Amino acid sequence: MILDSDDLDRLEQRYRAAFANSLTGFKPANLVGTHGAGGDNLAIMSSAVHLGSSPFLLALVLRPDEARQHTLENIRETGFYTLNHVHESFFRAAHQTAARYPREVSEFAAVGLTAHRVGDFPAPFVAQARVRMGLALREHQRLAINGTHLLIGEVVLVDVPDDAVEDDGSVDIAAAGTVTISGLDRYHRAETLDRLPYAKPGG
Amino acid sequence: MILDSDDLDRLEQRYRAAFANSLTGFKPANLVGTHGAGGDNLAIMSSAVHLGSSPFLLALVLRPDEARQHTLENIRETGFYTLNHVHESFFRAAHQTAARYPREVSEFAAVGLTAHRVGDFPAPFVAQARVRMGLALREHQRLAINGTHLLIGEVVLVDVPDDAVEDDGSVDIAAAGTVTISGLDRYHRAETLDRLPYAKPGG
Repeated sequence: MILDSDDLDRLEQRYRAAFANSLTGFKPANLVGTHGAGGDNLAIMSSAVHLGSSPFLLALVLRPDEARQHTLENIRETGFYTLNHVHESFFRAAHQTAARYPREVSEFAAVGLTAHRVGDFPAPFVAQARVRMGLALREHQRLAINGTHLLIGEVVLVDVPDDAVEDDGSVDIAAAGTVTISGLDRYHRAETLDRLPYAKPGG
Repeated sequence: MILDSDDLDRLEQRYRAAFANSLTGFKPANLVGTHGAGGDNLAIMSSAVHLGSSPFLLALVLRPDEARQHTLENIRETGFYTLNHVHESFFRAAHQTAARYPREVSEFAAVGLTAHRVGDFPAPFVAQARVRMGLALREHQRLAINGTHLLIGEVVLVDVPDDAVEDDGSVDIAAAGTVTISGLDRYHRAETLDRLPYAKPGG
């Protein structure tokens, strides 16, 4: 089916959200850990995007909705947050962090995950995660076009299993059990098709 | 292994790029189609991120490198571009679009894909793709922090197989054969673990 702007405008709101969220493609599944006045907080997010390797920067897009508000407040208050890859063994618990718990409830306890501290890093990591990063907030802007928040963070700490890192620095996250999300609520395991060489004309 | 900022700074450039690009998690695999002075252009990108459903907005992050420069120029000149999901049947051809072809070479011809027009939409779609979107550029900013380009586009056309859209509007892109990328060069098929209900406290 082909839908133009008018067709898209006419879609019912929930239908449209499910449709639009499916069309970007597969998304990363990360749990964002923060600490603030309400204690530790944990929220699943599928909007992480790589901005650059030197410095090592990631962006997160946050919708201005209630459920993620505590995460945003904590990041702005402390300047620090963690990203933890969702592993196949706990994707159901990770999804459950999207429920609208009151601020004083720690999603860690509510969903059965464990907070893990690394040194004096101010935000909690997820003990059950195999791939974890600590970030420092570098820039926050609210996009005028629709009010979403763009948070740019520098990765200042990486905690990853030795055996997951290959000789060239790449990390086989499929082998590490990291999952991917499509749409609002589908979780997938990744099965590797191939690793391809650097592309050159005539190649 | 745990790496802090100093450890990360000391990584050799290529190692660091492979490492950092692996850590965001799984990424969407899209071919971006444009038309400009050099003819049709096609470039693989893994940086699409959902910004909102109403209006239906997607962002793309483009590094300021040569290979993608023609895509950026074409989008800025014409204001239109397409996103085409990379299907398992042509992920090798899709990867090959990353080679640095001269501007007058069409990546469609060079890699063996076919340009497909929908109505009078100014940018080419990929005939072999099953899920396709046409976008109008709404905002372009260069991020001061590292010079990357953030392009925000509104989806004004969607072309998707009838049988891929479910009753609630969600699209089963795993069943549609869309692939996902990890790191710089790994391609994966997605195997669905489950679809989870809307999360509620106590759920």
